[in-house]
Amino acid sequence: MIPSTFYLAALLFPTGESEALRLPLAMLLVFGGAKLFAELFERLRQPAIVGEILAGVLIGPSVLGWMTPNELLKTLADLGVMFLLFRVGLEVKASDLMKVGGTAALVAFLGVVLPFVLGWGIMSLWSAPQAEAVFVGAAMVATSVGITAQVLTSKGLLHQRASQIILAAAVIDDILGLLVLALVSGLARGKVNLLEIAATAAMAVGFTILVAKWGGRAMGRVVNRVHGKLQVQEAQFTIAMVALFALSALAVYVGVAAIVGAFLAGMALAESVGQRVHDLAHGVTELLVPFFLVGIGLHFDLHQFTDPATMVLALVILAAALLSKFLGCGLGAIRLGLAEAARVGVGMVPRGEVGMVVAQIGLSLGVIPAGVYSVVVFMAVATTIAAPPLIHLSFRKLMKTEGQAEVFHLG
Amino acid sequence: MIPSTFYLAALLFPTGESEALRLPLAMLLVFGGAKLFAELFERLRQPAIVGEILAGVLIGPSVLGWMTPNELLKTLADLGVMFLLFRVGLEVKASDLMKVGGTAALVAFLGVVLPFVLGWGIMSLWSAPQAEAVFVGAAMVATSVGITAQVLTSKGLLHQRASQIILAAAVIDDILGLLVLALVSGLARGKVNLLEIAATAAMAVGFTILVAKWGGRAMGRVVNRVHGKLQVQEAQFTIAMVALFALSALAVYVGVAAIVGAFLAGMALAESVGQRVHDLAHGVTELLVPFFLVGIGLHFDLHQFTDPATMVLALVILAAALLSKFLGCGLGAIRLGLAEAARVGVGMVPRGEVGMVVAQIGLSLGVIPAGVYSVVVFMAVATTIAAPPLIHLSFRKLMKTEGQAEVFHLG
Repeated sequence: MIPSTFYLAALLFPTGESEALRLPLAMLLVFGGAKLFAELFERLRQPAIVGEILAGVLIGPSVLGWMTPNELLKTLADLGVMFLLFRVGLEVKASDLMKVGGTAALVAFLGVVLPFVLGWGIMSLWSAPQAEAVFVGAAMVATSVGITAQVLTSKGLLHQRASQIILAAAVIDDILGLLVLALVSGLARGKVNLLEIAATAAMAVGFTILVAKWGGRAMGRVVNRVHGKLQVQEAQFTIAMVALFALSALAVYVGVAAIVGAFLAGMALAESVGQRVHDLAHGVTELLVPFFLVGIGLHFDLHQFTDPATMVLALVILAAALLSKFLGCGLGAIRLGLAEAARVGVGMVPRGEVGMVVAQIGLSLGVIPAGVYSVVVFMAVATTIAAPPLIHLSFRKLMKTEGQAEVFHLG
Repeated sequence: MIPSTFYLAALLFPTGESEALRLPLAMLLVFGGAKLFAELFERLRQPAIVGEILAGVLIGPSVLGWMTPNELLKTLADLGVMFLLFRVGLEVKASDLMKVGGTAALVAFLGVVLPFVLGWGIMSLWSAPQAEAVFVGAAMVATSVGITAQVLTSKGLLHQRASQIILAAAVIDDILGLLVLALVSGLARGKVNLLEIAATAAMAVGFTILVAKWGGRAMGRVVNRVHGKLQVQEAQFTIAMVALFALSALAVYVGVAAIVGAFLAGMALAESVGQRVHDLAHGVTELLVPFFLVGIGLHFDLHQFTDPATMVLALVILAAALLSKFLGCGLGAIRLGLAEAARVGVGMVPRGEVGMVVAQIGLSLGVIPAGVYSVVVFMAVATTIAAPPLIHLSFRKLMKTEGQAEVFHLG
């Protein structure tokens, strides 16, 4: 890939300099590649986000093989999705989400039950061991809200009712996913400690409700109290970042995902920080979200599918994952009409990094064999690529009426 | 540090969740700790930047031992200093730097020769082997411009003549440092390929002059041509980031530091990008610069000094490093008057991460023993902590007349 003359410096400084090349080269390849494909897809009137994921597939092991998932990319990707959800939270009112809470809970519940049952059923029919079947079901449960949030934000659709339901449902989905994972991990180890799981559930629910309900008021007081008193530069941004990292860490402690904490931090700060914080956080998001998207694409590895049987299983699981989430979540929102139900359904489809994490746990527990692991990763990536066009389609009517001005505001 | 009940989640999900805690916890500890100390130091009317480095010393191995340098922190620190120099470049005109080029070259040259000779002399008197003495001299050569740039930027002093000389001299210093390192690495290996070193020098000088002289015009054309045509969001920011990473990578290819490429990229873009790019890049800088500063502090490890002889050597080397850089660089700018010469002299004092990289190379070549390595690291960190108060002091007169408005502009 790189002409050998360029290695002159690397030859001179064997440890220092070739290591020094890693970071700027990775940044260039991932960010540049993602944006090139985003531009290409915008011109083809396709979702830019799909272009960025496919850039990852292209430079990943399936096609060019220039990159494989590594620690550096994972750090930047994790930070990117954390900031993405933080930014989404900044534009959402907790009270609005509470209002759609009932519907969202039903959406989340049905969107967990259907995929789990279907995944478990398919694997059982495939004559997989029970522990394996149960784990694949669990991996099909968790929605990755990052993808949907990015599409909705970029199209200015975050304030729509369907968007609010999706966001609230995604938070509840994360808690339910935590419980499902705790249960199946327990089953895989042969000991289910129901008391421990109940305690985890109580902590997760308590934390979420506490922050959602009183976080805004608390952060308002903090920001008001220190405003003009702090002498450190960019004081509001500093407070916002500390809140973001503290709530993300706390979220992991109580058992939910770091991005749920990031989302709650954004919501808590929404009404107390100024435009400056939005702009600075937006800079970080713009830089790092491509790493999240390309990172998902990098996991896509067609070489894993050596036998036709695995390939068939992958397609069956993918179809089941798409349909079960769409129908389950749509059913939960059916009383709002078919169009709204469809929007909610497709918004919950992406599994992204969450599904992969579950599969990794299964792999490390020895419950899922490598072949089935790659099937789950395929499902996670493919649902993520499939969702954005479907979201566009289902939200098209709303974009034409309300979102239009937003779509090109930064063109 | 963390109550064991909090590990409930980690117990449930042995691989997934304790790993998930690493990132938000590291962000909280490093960013939060840095800003806490920055605030404290501002209130004590001391430089905030020293507070942030000392936060690293505090949570590092010397005191609390909560953290040691690791891959995650290094990635964020490297990115942080890259963005720091990019932002500085955005506020500097290449033509202004060219104007002070003659003085800067003299400053850089004397600021390389004196520290090298003094370092080599001291180690020779200490009866160290020649290769070791020469390597310590080389490690004392390289200025880390990040610290000075951060102080000058935050105090609104970047447009001062002394600041421009420091920036230009730091770029030249980096090229000279490259040559010194190539020479001593060759000596350590027993084969000096002068032709190769000359080729490296030519490439480094050619690249720097090329980008400094014509980069602005080239980037102006690129930005003009694609303006309004790109459909990807935040098009200007995207172009700026690609230029930043491409020039940083190219810089490493031709042998200079990535941050020199980042600085050149900023300068090239200075006149063609809008305020929006400044704001978005500033967000990344604000988030990541604490990782650079804390990262330097983390390397400070007093436990390394077990015998008094090493401690004495460390103090002698530190004094030599401070004096030789100050006098050498000051001498280079002496015709501008004593006050200006003093400003330039103190601005070039910090060795920071650059000195540590040289020491690491020496360690990996087996030329520097571990004890001397820790002496060099101590010198690198201590010069970096000592410089900001000296910069404040020497620039105080200029701050009172011109920089005042800037100092509190974000208070």
